[in-house]
Amino acid sequence: MSDRARFEALDATDPFAALRDAFALPPGVRYFDGNSLGPQPKAARAAVLRVLEQGWGEALIRGWNDEGWFELPDRTAEALAPLLGAAPSSVAVADSTSLNIFKLLAAALAARPGRTKIFALRDTFPTDLYMAEGLVHWLGEARAELCTFPCLDALRDALDGTVAVVLLSHVDFRTGERLALPQITAAVHDHGALVLWDLAHSAGAMPLALETWGVDFAVGCGYKFLNGGPGAPAFAYVAPALQATLSQPLAGWFGHARPFAFEPAYDPAAGVDRLKCGTPPILSLAALAGALKLFDGVSLAALREKSLALTTALMDEVAARPALKAFQCLTPRDAERRGSQVAFAHPEAYALIQALQDDGVIGDFRAPNILRFGVSPAVLRFVDVFDAVECLEATVRSGRHRAARYQTTKEVT
Amino acid sequence: MSDRARFEALDATDPFAALRDAFALPPGVRYFDGNSLGPQPKAARAAVLRVLEQGWGEALIRGWNDEGWFELPDRTAEALAPLLGAAPSSVAVADSTSLNIFKLLAAALAARPGRTKIFALRDTFPTDLYMAEGLVHWLGEARAELCTFPCLDALRDALDGTVAVVLLSHVDFRTGERLALPQITAAVHDHGALVLWDLAHSAGAMPLALETWGVDFAVGCGYKFLNGGPGAPAFAYVAPALQATLSQPLAGWFGHARPFAFEPAYDPAAGVDRLKCGTPPILSLAALAGALKLFDGVSLAALREKSLALTTALMDEVAARPALKAFQCLTPRDAERRGSQVAFAHPEAYALIQALQDDGVIGDFRAPNILRFGVSPAVLRFVDVFDAVECLEATVRSGRHRAARYQTTKEVT
Repeated sequence: MSDRARFEALDATDPFAALRDAFALPPGVRYFDGNSLGPQPKAARAAVLRVLEQGWGEALIRGWNDEGWFELPDRTAEALAPLLGAAPSSVAVADSTSLNIFKLLAAALAARPGRTKIFALRDTFPTDLYMAEGLVHWLGEARAELCTFPCLDALRDALDGTVAVVLLSHVDFRTGERLALPQITAAVHDHGALVLWDLAHSAGAMPLALETWGVDFAVGCGYKFLNGGPGAPAFAYVAPALQATLSQPLAGWFGHARPFAFEPAYDPAAGVDRLKCGTPPILSLAALAGALKLFDGVSLAALREKSLALTTALMDEVAARPALKAFQCLTPRDAERRGSQVAFAHPEAYALIQALQDDGVIGDFRAPNILRFGVSPAVLRFVDVFDAVECLEATVRSGRHRAARYQTTKEVT
Repeated sequence: MSDRARFEALDATDPFAALRDAFALPPGVRYFDGNSLGPQPKAARAAVLRVLEQGWGEALIRGWNDEGWFELPDRTAEALAPLLGAAPSSVAVADSTSLNIFKLLAAALAARPGRTKIFALRDTFPTDLYMAEGLVHWLGEARAELCTFPCLDALRDALDGTVAVVLLSHVDFRTGERLALPQITAAVHDHGALVLWDLAHSAGAMPLALETWGVDFAVGCGYKFLNGGPGAPAFAYVAPALQATLSQPLAGWFGHARPFAFEPAYDPAAGVDRLKCGTPPILSLAALAGALKLFDGVSLAALREKSLALTTALMDEVAARPALKAFQCLTPRDAERRGSQVAFAHPEAYALIQALQDDGVIGDFRAPNILRFGVSPAVLRFVDVFDAVECLEATVRSGRHRAARYQTTKEVT
């Protein structure tokens, strides 16, 4: 059996092979960037067209009632809740991940009066830190303080009774390392602090059990493994015990108990509904709602199994090729400690990613020297992994990535 | 000449008659709700399809560069700036009106250290008050205070050196009354305070000259007279003199000077760019960007002239009919004091609006007893006004709005 045939054989027994057909994928593309922008589910496209045609085009303002736009945030949250291991009433879909972090950090400080510290890792996704910084700056040092740590051990060692909330990413956006969420949550709770998990790189790629794990707060993106489209609305989770007293500053009319009574005073809606703020962007929200239909009846455990098989295959295939020995794998070999991506450090990372893209192998670059290969288990095939590594080796051998056109830095999200 | 023929004659000389063809309007509809959800420009639909097809569908992650998604907020702001009488560098497109109010109220407090009061009218659009309330609650009474007034005279009389910012709607969402923006701005400045105008009901319906008028801050919706689609992103304006020191708490990565350097510390982008926060919803933003193309080459002064002619015709036609004498017009007769809508109070307002909708005349209801007829001068015809009033009279005469199906309250945005 040839090398590629071995991968084809794995695809032949893939229980998710049919799910790939639910996506609109351009021909010839091997897409390793579902952790940055998930590919387009056909159902998402259909949902957007419905908003354009029967909604905005026909029903016009009546779409808010007749096309269910008022309820769309809630229906989207309902579809998302099982992916998080949460009750629908614990999940809100609104705004961006950045804004939801602001809301929930504020809520955590309110829920732990007398405690002022927000703990985070220095290498976490930067917007998480920026939002914390913005909140802390505005509340003032008497009420809030942001403490960042170089590593998890240092953060754990510093935990004490002054910590209100610990903000962590479940899966590191650079390395793909997955933290031991249940154990860390318990350790934070031992000090009476709350935890806010950023699930941007795990929601939709693996089973989550937020309620069982006792998670207090969580946020995440709609546009990565949930495939909701560029800049799709984000989500927020709040533990049932924290919902009744949930308090946050971004008190918009969609979070009011009776938005259309037009009352002058803010009266928060029940529970997580008060995390909604302004009028939601319906076209983008409809795409996310449509995309989530793909998870109907899907076993997240089986999806995770395929994800791990794909990332293992990718790491193995690179490691097995002497021509690729300069690629330093940053992603843990231990499956428990791995998300759904593989990252390699290489001094020519930027140019290599650009050159691969021209051959239809789409990963992305993260400063200063990281090649990221996201693995969307719902769409990726084992032969895609093989072809990507073949392409990488051919590129390295030929040196074609050293062409001038691959050297200019552009932004890559 | 019959009554209707008189309106047809006005349409025959309408300089905007051709512009109507740029919208996708369902047949038979007389649409008087462009002040709540503007109708769909064909260019908006095309822009959304481009994101679905060449963008998300083909370019995938490369769309951020190759389809210009990174620059889309800025390009949208550029297209919007002339409608506001502002330089492109004074306008940001981001998030919702609610969130932009939060940002700019915070910025105003920061720009007037030692002053704590936010002044507003009690009858302003409620989310404006809610966001102010949220900000004030979180900053604490030593740093911020929200003072609301029953009328503009009371607010003006109370102005003094403790006021940081006055938050006002240019056009009242219920009555359609337009405030004397330049004069009020000057009066607020006389006390050293700043002004934040909510332009939700004026942007796109009349000429604005924010820079000339010395406006400090402004916000507005993308989905009303700008026709950006349901829940389209909102805008924010900051006067040039206030941009360099602009400071606000919602410090997300899209407002960072170098978002893709992934630096751990927040360094605000220049000027209004720091009002951008999380990843923007591209489908919804693209619709707004497409919609704004309709204003290319359009004279806002001429558009305003048509708007006033339409609202005058609507008021006159209702006033002229004895059968409609119970409809109390809430909108000022003085053109200077009028926005682009006409509102009537009537005890059966809700049922009447529902019954009219079934006949294709789409206005909306505002609690407790208001029928609102928004006037989008780019699409509405004079015969639409005539037909709407005919339909209203026929409904009142027949009493068909008293059918049970028109009595149940649903939400209307």
